[in-house]
Amino acid sequence: MNQKINLPLLTISTFTILFSMEIKLQAQQLPPDKIQNYNEIAGKIVRSALLDKKGYEWLNELCSIGPRLSGSENSSKAISWAKNKMSECGFDSVWLQPVMVPKWVRGKIEKAYISKSKKYLNKKITIVSYGGSIGTSKAGISGQVIEVRGLDEVKNLGDKAKGKIVFYNRPFDNGLLNTFEGYGKAVDQRINGAIEASKIGAAAVIVRSVQSSYDNIPHTGVMLYEDNVKQIPSAAISVIDADFLSKAIQSEPNLNITIKMDCKSFPDVESYNVIGQLTGGEKPNEVIVVGGHFDSWDKGCGAHDDGAPCLQTMEALNLLKRLNIKPKRTIRCVLFINEENGLRGGIEYGKFSSTSSEINLAGIESDRGAFTPRGFSVTTDSLSLMKMQSWLPILNKADIEWIHKGGSGCDVGQIKNAKALLGYVPDDQRYMDLHHSDNDIYTAVHPREMELGSAAIAIMSYLLSEEGL
Amino acid sequence: MNQKINLPLLTISTFTILFSMEIKLQAQQLPPDKIQNYNEIAGKIVRSALLDKKGYEWLNELCSIGPRLSGSENSSKAISWAKNKMSECGFDSVWLQPVMVPKWVRGKIEKAYISKSKKYLNKKITIVSYGGSIGTSKAGISGQVIEVRGLDEVKNLGDKAKGKIVFYNRPFDNGLLNTFEGYGKAVDQRINGAIEASKIGAAAVIVRSVQSSYDNIPHTGVMLYEDNVKQIPSAAISVIDADFLSKAIQSEPNLNITIKMDCKSFPDVESYNVIGQLTGGEKPNEVIVVGGHFDSWDKGCGAHDDGAPCLQTMEALNLLKRLNIKPKRTIRCVLFINEENGLRGGIEYGKFSSTSSEINLAGIESDRGAFTPRGFSVTTDSLSLMKMQSWLPILNKADIEWIHKGGSGCDVGQIKNAKALLGYVPDDQRYMDLHHSDNDIYTAVHPREMELGSAAIAIMSYLLSEEGL
Repeated sequence: MNQKINLPLLTISTFTILFSMEIKLQAQQLPPDKIQNYNEIAGKIVRSALLDKKGYEWLNELCSIGPRLSGSENSSKAISWAKNKMSECGFDSVWLQPVMVPKWVRGKIEKAYISKSKKYLNKKITIVSYGGSIGTSKAGISGQVIEVRGLDEVKNLGDKAKGKIVFYNRPFDNGLLNTFEGYGKAVDQRINGAIEASKIGAAAVIVRSVQSSYDNIPHTGVMLYEDNVKQIPSAAISVIDADFLSKAIQSEPNLNITIKMDCKSFPDVESYNVIGQLTGGEKPNEVIVVGGHFDSWDKGCGAHDDGAPCLQTMEALNLLKRLNIKPKRTIRCVLFINEENGLRGGIEYGKFSSTSSEINLAGIESDRGAFTPRGFSVTTDSLSLMKMQSWLPILNKADIEWIHKGGSGCDVGQIKNAKALLGYVPDDQRYMDLHHSDNDIYTAVHPREMELGSAAIAIMSYLLSEEGL
Repeated sequence: MNQKINLPLLTISTFTILFSMEIKLQAQQLPPDKIQNYNEIAGKIVRSALLDKKGYEWLNELCSIGPRLSGSENSSKAISWAKNKMSECGFDSVWLQPVMVPKWVRGKIEKAYISKSKKYLNKKITIVSYGGSIGTSKAGISGQVIEVRGLDEVKNLGDKAKGKIVFYNRPFDNGLLNTFEGYGKAVDQRINGAIEASKIGAAAVIVRSVQSSYDNIPHTGVMLYEDNVKQIPSAAISVIDADFLSKAIQSEPNLNITIKMDCKSFPDVESYNVIGQLTGGEKPNEVIVVGGHFDSWDKGCGAHDDGAPCLQTMEALNLLKRLNIKPKRTIRCVLFINEENGLRGGIEYGKFSSTSSEINLAGIESDRGAFTPRGFSVTTDSLSLMKMQSWLPILNKADIEWIHKGGSGCDVGQIKNAKALLGYVPDDQRYMDLHHSDNDIYTAVHPREMELGSAAIAIMSYLLSEEGL
């Protein structure tokens, strides 16, 4: 059954007039022969994406390398792998853009346990170190646990937390429709928790893992330090153990925990953005960038964040190439390194984009997982937005339902003077269950969901290439 | 980030006029205070659905009973369970509507193996009997395998398949966007395959499992016989084994397989539709039915098909009850029995609906899995459709993106003279991986995806109750 083709037969004149105008407006924007041609091309793209599943096949190879933390050996392997794949695809140019990236290493020890308690002595607490955190001494850090719900509460603690372990325990709000909003409302504890706790003399912090699921697999992510504020260790505690600990210290306020971590930062190392392009046949100097970040956290294998989305953008070019569709303008795939803990790849490409003689027409970022397509969120002027919205019936072939004004992504956001910056928006209901965790693995990605994203990005970049803005 | 609030600031007069008209039109349909009130209620419904996860909690209980094939002991247990739950929820009326249903029992034996071959002797072939099929003798049915791509090809086989086993091997088309369309284009082999093969004298049929995934878990489903055509056994073969068998008979055309099945049909037994309602405060005689089919196949536990969707409709009423929202019109949850292999529950309720003095305002069916919401597909007149479409901004709080003309569902489709019949449409990309198979279990359902559906159905049924059609 086709649920998409439905023009109501109207019986009231105002409705009829309105709908006629709307249809006419859309028709004015693209002549019927072009619409037909684009629909045919979009149909071929979707079919090829779903049947060939090339991106999904690549994802299996990429995930077999392992996670791709910036500056790690795995990330170097993955960069070589991607460059080779782009060359094998026959993209017109393929190159590496050097980027200096931070190098943080988790080490082998990240553990916590209850070290003073009548009831729970030696009970293990599941933690993962946050990216960028310093480690503890070999003996670890032991102390009483001070539970708080947020940064403001810490600021008001005075001397109470001196030498102790601050436990941020404000939960992810699962009552919100948009899980990115839930994430945004909880993640300040992870990012700035150590700074605020250190200011009042705390010895370390643990933060309730920022995630929508309820399990014992804590999610990592970046945390920050501030100049002139003493650096203290910072780790996520699983949500199940967070609930346990919260109850335990209610009955035993003097309970102590011990944390041991041997993570460490090293000097910056050289890494690369991986870049490949289909050079435009008519306006090669006008560039549409598609991409995601190729680094990941070092838990799971960064399948949804951001392996599969990166490969969607590579496959978008590959789909056009495979189907012998030659774009008028240049479509360039950029796999940005180091979004997770530095954004250095995005910044470096941004510098290039501002000094090059190219015209930065558009940037499309895929960094919200590889779930079923919903829409595109776009930063642009109203006329360009209207123009893109007129393409919706074509994009709908890849299940794109809407194009709204909104943010794009951290990496393409660094491209200067772009006419439009777009974020590809898949469904987000399951993303925060696995983001930055051991659950973010190959089998968590569904081939059809992933490849519809490849198709959506291919169609959007092709329409931008043909129609401009 | 909120990706949904975007009214473009237009600079061209025709666009401005058009958009102003559109906005005005929507505003005319519901006054601002009503919109605000409905938005507040919808917000509460979504929040309560996502946080309480009552439907998902119920699903765990329901799945622990096991699958619920019509006429089985499990289905009786599940019916009692649901009636008790509705009573516990405090619905205004709860009752059982008797329905005579077919009783088919899979038995304990369903196996196949290669019984004559140089290379593959005794290799196991994974099959599952189709619902309604007769069994084989104890010795089984052995024969050469005749591979075909569809019913037409069988009609042209002449005597070639006499006494042999016809193997329908036309694959599911994974190149289509809509997996229900892929299913629809392959399922005739399962439904009518035995009839056509029997007409040319075949001894049995095996059918490539109708599914979007590639694994060794075949999917069951209903098959039909025709009066005056000899009944022959019919089973699904897993897609992996179908590919194996196809290759094997290319190299060894005389290869034989043996099939043994002890499934069997019994006389009809009494079963029930489970019905509960919130009686309308102002127009109790006008009824909005929400429901799904409570029977399932006997593989997995019928979590997506159709346990979770049934519980979404139960939770829709429960959400209104929990939030103390009293509908003007009656909202009735009907859990129809025997959709899978008879539609008897739907037909029985249809009879009631045509003889009762009630006004059948609307029926909403949830029978497409419990994945993330996309829209509602509606059979109604154009004005009613426009009216419902004007509610989209409210329904969007539960991630509903569209309301289109289209089919509703088999069960509510039996309701006579309804002003509108709606199908709740969640995303379908993963559904045909698990439908009618051992993969359709509790853990395949995601709580947020499921409960957004509960919320969407609650909001739609409430708006229908308040605004009528």
